[in-house]
Amino acid sequence: MATITIVGLGLIGGSLGLALKAAKPTGIEIVGHDKDRTRATKAQRLGAIDRAEGRLDKAVQDAAMVILATPVLAIRRVMEEMAPYLPENCIVTDTGSTKAAILAWAQELLPPTVHFVGGHPIAGKEQSGIDAAQADLFRDKPYCVIPLPDTHEQAVRAVVGMAELVGARPMYMDARDHDQFLAAVSHMPMILSTALFTLARSSASWKDISAVAGPAFRDLTRLASGDPEMDHDICLTNSEGIIHWLDRYIEELRRYRTLIVDDQEKLFETFMRAQLERDTFIEARPAERGPAVEVPSSGEFMMGLLFSERLVRRTKAVMQELGRLGGPGAPPEDRGRRR
Amino acid sequence: MATITIVGLGLIGGSLGLALKAAKPTGIEIVGHDKDRTRATKAQRLGAIDRAEGRLDKAVQDAAMVILATPVLAIRRVMEEMAPYLPENCIVTDTGSTKAAILAWAQELLPPTVHFVGGHPIAGKEQSGIDAAQADLFRDKPYCVIPLPDTHEQAVRAVVGMAELVGARPMYMDARDHDQFLAAVSHMPMILSTALFTLARSSASWKDISAVAGPAFRDLTRLASGDPEMDHDICLTNSEGIIHWLDRYIEELRRYRTLIVDDQEKLFETFMRAQLERDTFIEARPAERGPAVEVPSSGEFMMGLLFSERLVRRTKAVMQELGRLGGPGAPPEDRGRRR
Repeated sequence: MATITIVGLGLIGGSLGLALKAAKPTGIEIVGHDKDRTRATKAQRLGAIDRAEGRLDKAVQDAAMVILATPVLAIRRVMEEMAPYLPENCIVTDTGSTKAAILAWAQELLPPTVHFVGGHPIAGKEQSGIDAAQADLFRDKPYCVIPLPDTHEQAVRAVVGMAELVGARPMYMDARDHDQFLAAVSHMPMILSTALFTLARSSASWKDISAVAGPAFRDLTRLASGDPEMDHDICLTNSEGIIHWLDRYIEELRRYRTLIVDDQEKLFETFMRAQLERDTFIEARPAERGPAVEVPSSGEFMMGLLFSERLVRRTKAVMQELGRLGGPGAPPEDRGRRR
Repeated sequence: MATITIVGLGLIGGSLGLALKAAKPTGIEIVGHDKDRTRATKAQRLGAIDRAEGRLDKAVQDAAMVILATPVLAIRRVMEEMAPYLPENCIVTDTGSTKAAILAWAQELLPPTVHFVGGHPIAGKEQSGIDAAQADLFRDKPYCVIPLPDTHEQAVRAVVGMAELVGARPMYMDARDHDQFLAAVSHMPMILSTALFTLARSSASWKDISAVAGPAFRDLTRLASGDPEMDHDICLTNSEGIIHWLDRYIEELRRYRTLIVDDQEKLFETFMRAQLERDTFIEARPAERGPAVEVPSSGEFMMGLLFSERLVRRTKAVMQELGRLGGPGAPPEDRGRRR
């Protein structure tokens, strides 16, 4: 029996649990931990986890894989707190929306005896929290997998396999690229959406304005209803990427302003082209939109986890041997291998 | 039998036809005209109209009510072209997204013997065209009714009744207010949405960026897939309103930029407040969002139309009488009454 522990049982953590349990890999127990115990109890009642564990140390101590699904800044706190209790060769991954900062924390805070692989499922919806969790949230969605340069290959394959198990399309990515690309399609849009809402809301005519607000306004301000903690953490850990795109976006708005005032014909062409290109983008099948990745089958995922369990046992044996010889602990090649 | 003629059989015109026919008012024939005859044939096949009429003059010559549902600039062209053929006391309304320009054209181009009432159903979706038409498109949606100061009351009540028949919530509004409010929640958001798409699309990293574009990007760029002609016409006829809001929006983005760089705590508070206020806005029942209007029942709508037919007959009799007396045509009080 291999244990997968999910820390943070909100929309993403809860949906991962539901999806993993729906995939029914044999011999896996899903343990859930949340600092809010009622949330963990609810996750268990909803069938997202097999067992709720109120103490973080106990939740991770036997885990073959730990998935951190808390808001970004909380990931740092959890890493710090759980580090002493992680079993050797444990595979640690996360679902945070920014990656460079999280990878740096993993290098700083996690022991060299575990394997960290960054992850980010590109899935979400307006509602947050365990009540909004659903087993098919990741179905056919991209799942970014961000290894460190020297992450153990078997650990990467296990995370890729987990992403595949929940129905997502895993894709490898560099942390810096990830943060730049996500700033363009997710983080900066979140600012645009919120700013549109706060601007209209702060108007003296809000009552009248809101009376004529239709589907366009509703859709465009959807991200203003996102989790404030999550949004704040994203801004803190990817301010560079967001500011880069925000400045370019303001320039783009100025270009439209000029067209509206001065060049109606060019404006029409711009709308025509945008419609054509967006329709092409929307109609493209997901597979055509980006590089696929060779994913291991679910069977390989299980093997990855079991292999890592065998690795634990083997490493323990080696360590004991070294201990008996008065050696320094983990052998140097194992330390090096971690990242 | 009273005739309602719909000119322009796209998403809005087609949906109005379907909704009117679904409401089954007795003694009404829905005639449809579109410059594209295949579209009119299709509208008839889909049951959106009782009869397609390829010639505009014939389509309007017996109409108790004419609904103009073309893109905004085409409304001017249609007004000009149909003006000589409109029967006396015909009620003319439109569904255009901007109102000040359209009301000015009506005053300039329509004969004094007809009654113009501006209209704007706040409903739409990503897809355009007759294929996307649906009978419930206007269900519980606001329907702005914009009379001229001296429009005949019975004509206003007929348009309000029509809006009610298709399931919408009619609300009176001033043309200038309408254009300002719609700029905030519809026209400027259309620019924001399109600009977000064109900015990302023009990036050298578009292939990678689009691979990680999730629901946030899809929803926020939805309006970039709107009808380019409609978007262009809106910008041309409401540039003042759009520029006003665009400038304020750029200022709002600069405020967020400052918060991201300098004041993370204030940023968090801003997100918190935005989430709370948007949730309140979304949860409010439509009726709470804005002023309702006392609407006549469907029966009154029919009475409005039939009354206007009686008015036609009476006016004709008066005109004939005047003609016999060698008088100047329509009596002065009827001219004055029009607007």
